[in-house]
Amino acid sequence: MQLRSHCPVNYALEHIGDKWVLLILRDIIFKGFRHYNDFLKGGEGISTSVLSNRLSLLEESGILRKGEDPVKKSRILYSLTPKGISLLPVLIELIRWSGKHDEETIASPAFLEQADKNTESLIQRLSQNLEAVHLK
Amino acid sequence: MQLRSHCPVNYALEHIGDKWVLLILRDIIFKGFRHYNDFLKGGEGISTSVLSNRLSLLEESGILRKGEDPVKKSRILYSLTPKGISLLPVLIELIRWSGKHDEETIASPAFLEQADKNTESLIQRLSQNLEAVHLK
Repeated sequence: MQLRSHCPVNYALEHIGDKWVLLILRDIIFKGFRHYNDFLKGGEGISTSVLSNRLSLLEESGILRKGEDPVKKSRILYSLTPKGISLLPVLIELIRWSGKHDEETIASPAFLEQADKNTESLIQRLSQNLEAVHLK
Repeated sequence: MQLRSHCPVNYALEHIGDKWVLLILRDIIFKGFRHYNDFLKGGEGISTSVLSNRLSLLEESGILRKGEDPVKKSRILYSLTPKGISLLPVLIELIRWSGKHDEETIASPAFLEQADKNTESLIQRLSQNLEAVHLK
């Protein structure tokens, strides 16, 4: 990917500054989505061409990787790389911000409290779940 | 603004999930930009129509406010509201992520070290600067 500048905000934006990319990351992290069809039917109405494009971009950026599904080998299993998992703090801060400012947020109070008070342990727990995908 | 869902990731995306919005926030927070012309000449090549649109959206979202410039009263001074200032952790996590993964990042090692080790005090210092704009 040809970057226009190595400003760190720009770098992050070039990789994840897209609505669909962030929704895909959310669905992997918080909904446990692993397969193409999970994303497609995720309820946000993503089209197949946008989905394929964003999955390729995420793979190219080293955020997502494709593997073999242990249950059905012909099916592709998507999971986050360590680089992708290290985006957890960004997602959590987005959620904390919305939790503070959206009175109708659907984020659970228990989750928000943990994000406020035990960010580190929340990140650790989520990371372990994400890392375990390939070990199952 | 009519939200499609009150999912917290979606809420954040509806408000700040746009490249230009995030670059404007970056420039206010880290470059001290305060005036329309600062943003326009910021080097990223934003057009006047996109800039006006994004400034209006940010004001509408309660992230940015317009005030009177203390030096030249006819000039509009843009500054972050408390809601806008509370986006600091998101920006800092984006920068930390890029600092880890972009070998050519222009983020200074001192800044990244502070972001890693003293996030709270970094946020406090930046918040104070941003809150002080209207007091000058």
